[in-house]
Amino acid sequence: MHIYLDCVPCFIRQALDAARHVTDDELVHEMIVRKVAELIAELDMTNPPPVMGQRIHRLVREMANVEDPYHHFKQRFNDAALSRYSNLREIIADSANHIETAVRIAIAGNIIDFGVKSKLEESELFETIKQCLIQENTGMQIKEFIEAVNKAEDILYLADNAGEIVFDRLLIEQLPVEKITVVVKGRPVINDATMEDAIRTGLPQITDVIDNGSDAPGTILESCSQSFRNRFEKADMVIAKGQGNYESLSNLDKNIFFMLKAKCPVIASDIGCKVGEMVLLHNNSFRKGRL
Amino acid sequence: MHIYLDCVPCFIRQALDAARHVTDDELVHEMIVRKVAELIAELDMTNPPPVMGQRIHRLVREMANVEDPYHHFKQRFNDAALSRYSNLREIIADSANHIETAVRIAIAGNIIDFGVKSKLEESELFETIKQCLIQENTGMQIKEFIEAVNKAEDILYLADNAGEIVFDRLLIEQLPVEKITVVVKGRPVINDATMEDAIRTGLPQITDVIDNGSDAPGTILESCSQSFRNRFEKADMVIAKGQGNYESLSNLDKNIFFMLKAKCPVIASDIGCKVGEMVLLHNNSFRKGRL
Repeated sequence: MHIYLDCVPCFIRQALDAARHVTDDELVHEMIVRKVAELIAELDMTNPPPVMGQRIHRLVREMANVEDPYHHFKQRFNDAALSRYSNLREIIADSANHIETAVRIAIAGNIIDFGVKSKLEESELFETIKQCLIQENTGMQIKEFIEAVNKAEDILYLADNAGEIVFDRLLIEQLPVEKITVVVKGRPVINDATMEDAIRTGLPQITDVIDNGSDAPGTILESCSQSFRNRFEKADMVIAKGQGNYESLSNLDKNIFFMLKAKCPVIASDIGCKVGEMVLLHNNSFRKGRL
Repeated sequence: MHIYLDCVPCFIRQALDAARHVTDDELVHEMIVRKVAELIAELDMTNPPPVMGQRIHRLVREMANVEDPYHHFKQRFNDAALSRYSNLREIIADSANHIETAVRIAIAGNIIDFGVKSKLEESELFETIKQCLIQENTGMQIKEFIEAVNKAEDILYLADNAGEIVFDRLLIEQLPVEKITVVVKGRPVINDATMEDAIRTGLPQITDVIDNGSDAPGTILESCSQSFRNRFEKADMVIAKGQGNYESLSNLDKNIFFMLKAKCPVIASDIGCKVGEMVLLHNNSFRKGRL
């Protein structure tokens, strides 16, 4: 997905939210907004939005001189999610369709996104899980997803945010774990999960975890390490979690399932779904205009 | 009121709305967004927001080569408002407090603001009137306003938008019209009322109407004609309608009553009221922190 003009006001809003998150210094906020405006004036609109997200959050970290501004939030939502882990695992075990229930929970976890929302409380996360468990399925290709997982031999699971990866773990436990490698970000960006979060939430105990070498809030292949790019090339199926991965990979010709909660109207329109909808969709499907 | 950083995403959003309003050419939309981003990078944050609004809408008119992009909307809402004129006049006549009812109707008319909203239907306008007639009075100094009008000798009524001026007329008819001069914009900007709208809605038949010589969506004195500035200096009371006039005159040391519907969270926060609130407030009052 390329940058839409409607993304532009949101770039400024995101930069301002992030600036206010890292420092109370209003002069720094102003400098960041001005710098982002300069980037916008020269923006290559053919890029996916996370290219801009990467620049914005690098700028925020540099100007405020903070390496991992969302570290506290990441820990907090890892712990909040872990506190529900056993309970959610039981809900999955007791459900009629384990994989569908686990997918719904994994999508609910995608609400933990500080790129889209500037504030989130644990109560909202738990409320979202409740809703996702009963929400009508209008945009989830569960059957196709299960078939693809069974057929594939080497699956990359591109994780999105800290906290959320606990819910990804619950889903991965329902899949053939030996085929799956989870991918986290190479360096901190917003609240995206890094290796530290994977370790804290016990993912390496159940499956392989690698990092992509990048600090983009999505998967910008040019920004990833060569070793990750080779690994990506080799995989015969990709499960891409969250909006950032959708934005950066939706135009790729590869066997990818996108799994996300559509939170932004521009992305929802690009997918062809409604804001708030749960999406599990093969990239061939929306190219054919199924949604 | 100076420019807040929260105004910045909204500048881009406004520019994009206006660009889409004047042309379907996406290249022009993109050029306008880039140019506005350049302006933001160099922005003087001590200015009131309508200074930026003036630049944005000049840019839109120049780049799309359209002199009065909202002409059709202005006519449409003048006519919609005129169609309710007699009915609303009766409502005022039948009410317990004529001036308060007329103020509520004048404030309801302030919903016709294409700077804030990109779309408006007549039905929403009429619904807003209904609500404003029954809404609790939390931010209207009716008594102080009536006293000030009675005491003043030379009152400037700074109009805001086309259509809305029909509702202003209903209020002005309840006041000593011989003391009042209505001020419209000197040239088209968004859907702000100009002399053409004043004439179409019959205002010059009941009171003096002048223009301020400016195309700012507010009253930026430096941008107004010398004759208007002299007239402004001379007036012993000003009734300033709408957000743009609040933004541009709220820091002035003059006998001004601001009358508006607070539609924007930044302005509401600056005033100290809630979004959606009806405001009729003397500038001395909020400086003293009464709201």
